[in-house]
Amino acid sequence: MQASPILGEFLGTFILIFLGESVVANILLKGTKGQNAGLILITTAWGLAVMTGIFVAQKFGSEDAHLNPALTLAFAWKNGEWSHVPSYILAQFAGAFLGAVSTYLFYYPHWEVTEDKGNKLSVFATSPAIKHGPSNFYAEMSGTFVLMVGAGSIYSTDGSGLKPFLVGMLVFVIGNALGGTTGYAINPARDIAPRLAHFLLPIKGKGGSEWSYAWVPLFGPIVGAFLGILLF
Amino acid sequence: MQASPILGEFLGTFILIFLGESVVANILLKGTKGQNAGLILITTAWGLAVMTGIFVAQKFGSEDAHLNPALTLAFAWKNGEWSHVPSYILAQFAGAFLGAVSTYLFYYPHWEVTEDKGNKLSVFATSPAIKHGPSNFYAEMSGTFVLMVGAGSIYSTDGSGLKPFLVGMLVFVIGNALGGTTGYAINPARDIAPRLAHFLLPIKGKGGSEWSYAWVPLFGPIVGAFLGILLF
Amino acid sequence: MQASPILGEFLGTFILIFLGESVVANILLKGTKGQNAGLILITTAWGLAVMTGIFVAQKFGSEDAHLNPALTLAFAWKNGEWSHVPSYILAQFAGAFLGAVSTYLFYYPHWEVTEDKGNKLSVFATSPAIKHGPSNFYAEMSGTFVLMVGAGSIYSTDGSGLKPFLVGMLVFVIGNALGGTTGYAINPARDIAPRLAHFLLPIKGKGGSEWSYAWVPLFGPIVGAFLGILLF
Amino acid sequence: MQASPILGEFLGTFILIFLGESVVANILLKGTKGQNAGLILITTAWGLAVMTGIFVAQKFGSEDAHLNPALTLAFAWKNGEWSHVPSYILAQFAGAFLGAVSTYLFYYPHWEVTEDKGNKLSVFATSPAIKHGPSNFYAEMSGTFVLMVGAGSIYSTDGSGLKPFLVGMLVFVIGNALGGTTGYAINPARDIAPRLAHFLLPIKGKGGSEWSYAWVPLFGPIVGAFLGILLF
Repeated sequence: MQASPILGEFLGTFILIFLGESVVANILLKGTKGQNAGLILITTAWGLAVMTGIFVAQKFGSEDAHLNPALTLAFAWKNGEWSHVPSYILAQFAGAFLGAVSTYLFYYPHWEVTEDKGNKLSVFATSPAIKHGPSNFYAEMSGTFVLMVGAGSIYSTDGSGLKPFLVGMLVFVIGNALGGTTGYAINPARDIAPRLAHFLLPIKGKGGSEWSYAWVPLFGPIVGAFLGILLF
Repeated sequence: MQASPILGEFLGTFILIFLGESVVANILLKGTKGQNAGLILITTAWGLAVMTGIFVAQKFGSEDAHLNPALTLAFAWKNGEWSHVPSYILAQFAGAFLGAVSTYLFYYPHWEVTEDKGNKLSVFATSPAIKHGPSNFYAEMSGTFVLMVGAGSIYSTDGSGLKPFLVGMLVFVIGNALGGTTGYAINPARDIAPRLAHFLLPIKGKGGSEWSYAWVPLFGPIVGAFLGILLF
Repeated sequence: MQASPILGEFLGTFILIFLGESVVANILLKGTKGQNAGLILITTAWGLAVMTGIFVAQKFGSEDAHLNPALTLAFAWKNGEWSHVPSYILAQFAGAFLGAVSTYLFYYPHWEVTEDKGNKLSVFATSPAIKHGPSNFYAEMSGTFVLMVGAGSIYSTDGSGLKPFLVGMLVFVIGNALGGTTGYAINPARDIAPRLAHFLLPIKGKGGSEWSYAWVPLFGPIVGAFLGILLF
Repeated sequence: MQASPILGEFLGTFILIFLGESVVANILLKGTKGQNAGLILITTAWGLAVMTGIFVAQKFGSEDAHLNPALTLAFAWKNGEWSHVPSYILAQFAGAFLGAVSTYLFYYPHWEVTEDKGNKLSVFATSPAIKHGPSNFYAEMSGTFVLMVGAGSIYSTDGSGLKPFLVGMLVFVIGNALGGTTGYAINPARDIAPRLAHFLLPIKGKGGSEWSYAWVPLFGPIVGAFLGILLF
């Protein structure tokens, strides 16, 4: 295939979401080999899913490797360059949607045997531990702020090819530390596109897709990324 | 010894399988120090077993360090160069067989005290969480696809000597995320050669070797690796 | 903002404490997604919080990236250069205080539902497993000694941009190994400034701030850092 | 202090054993913050203790950074150069002894409240899961063989300052995979010197030091290291 930033953002976000959603499926769905195996599996995997997604995005043409509309918007605002933004964001949402569908297919026999509707939704989309609009918004905003400031600092150093790994470690610690309230979407594509997949896919015994909460992981990360850019 | 690609593939796969099968033995066999110590020990260890195997393979003469017949076949197809394929694959199967025998000897006193026949087989070979042929095949195929695309992307970067570690981290996240259905063989040698060892070795109180499932970890990874190569 | 060592120390310590205190909140407060999820989440997160703090401190102007008054004092003593010390330490305490306030806001809905007063204090400040003045002091002293000797040795090597990660791994192993008695403050700012935040903030149902113990995490790390410098 | 290989071996082994034994104390002794917190804390910590010990040894003058008499003997045999061997081994044993004493002091208030004599010994020395002389010997031999072959392969690569970290990751996977039978001493100094410390120190309510088993962690690693060198 012809390498291009759009293809890179698409494939990178696809790998990121396929790996990330799948680890949640492994821990939460019934009858898997990882059922209830612990939060450490989830937070390490999301971190390394970001690492893998960045490597794949760069290989297929996206040097930026945002994989995240909030970062794409914030950098566009900083650089005053907006022409690529619609195609980037579309690629990110499409990749995330395909990733979610892939997780659905990967864990196909496990949807039917899982009773808990909330666990099934949690494979796809985030939800608050305690519903509290302003606090949930603050959580997603400040988690993405830390992501932006941390990743921006890592990418400012002289550099080896290890930066994607270091950003993965940053996402790992964000998961451990700042995942406790809203499940650290910190990326609108990571939440909204898989939520849509949950809504559309014929998942056996699924419940509602909780669209009323979707504004938090949509707008919280965007505001957080803008605040992070402001700091630089 | 004279370094050569064959020796490298043999020793690298030996170390990979000896370490990988041994961590499963530590968690599943009775009376070990790691009994029931958690899936995180298994997935970190398989990742770092791959890292160690790559370093050893490269030291003893295999720059490729495939350690995996599916990768060897896919790269041969891509490069149109097949002459080394039989010797590579033989070396990989022989190394994996020796690794499985080493694990058997290492945990020698623990086979007798372990009653569960399924756990004993699981030290050697993979099995599905829920038996479902097409879905199990899809799982092994797409796990290997991610391995191929991820490792290929990692090896495309400018490079330090850290790439074997990064591939190990990739295998770690694949284990957490995509190990929940079939136990992520993602490598025919990793499953078939140790399954044969289980079949042949005088393991006390063992059950059947479940050859009827072996086609999945044999062909799934090969198809997945070919799809991954196609993407490049 | 204008990069400067003071700004770097302030922001780096802020990120360090925000991430570090938040992981404790995630594990100890009620109703979070990480409640009782295990010590490994805490020790990995504190390690990577230090890594992130160092990257941020360096990006915003502090090449030293001490983030720790004990290290600042020890290096000032070694170099005979004291003029920057008051501003560094003030920045570190202010950053740590802001980090603690951020954790308080981040986990806002969870303070009310958590009954255990000791757990609430533990989010902010350290406490001894068994109260024993000399032994607790020895623990904080020798933990910081290992930090100083280990980090000094890491920073003596030829260098890539990976040193902040390696120091993070050092803090991770210190947590696992030397966190069992006093909870490894190994940094006066990490304990005293958040303890003050606990004292001042309107945390629902909080208990005392245990100021009688504060001398241990204040002076133990300073003595340990001086002993470490002496070794070089 | 004057840097020298002897000082490096002494200080490196001291840090290695202080960190390694202390994590076992944290998990096994009563009333610590890490009691029963899981094997993953132990195996990650021993790996990173080796990393830290190597950095410290190199800083203080030992480029070799063996920290292990089995490696020192095997390399002496390979290179035909024996003059430094007695002083290296003495430094390694002295450092390990001091490390064990430091762990004793660090966890001082916890010895009295811990009833289990076996757990107290386990902080210092290894013991077999199932006593079986030949099998236990084979385990220590082959664990050290993997250490030698793996570390030798890692040190053969072009190199960054990351090799001590990679060797730490190797020790981590050895712990997960090959720690299940004898607790992976894989280093005579790591077992014998702390066993002597256990024998000599006034540990409250201690049991016997099990000298009858000491030949296994003494000779098994030496044979394994020689076999590993033979392979090169």
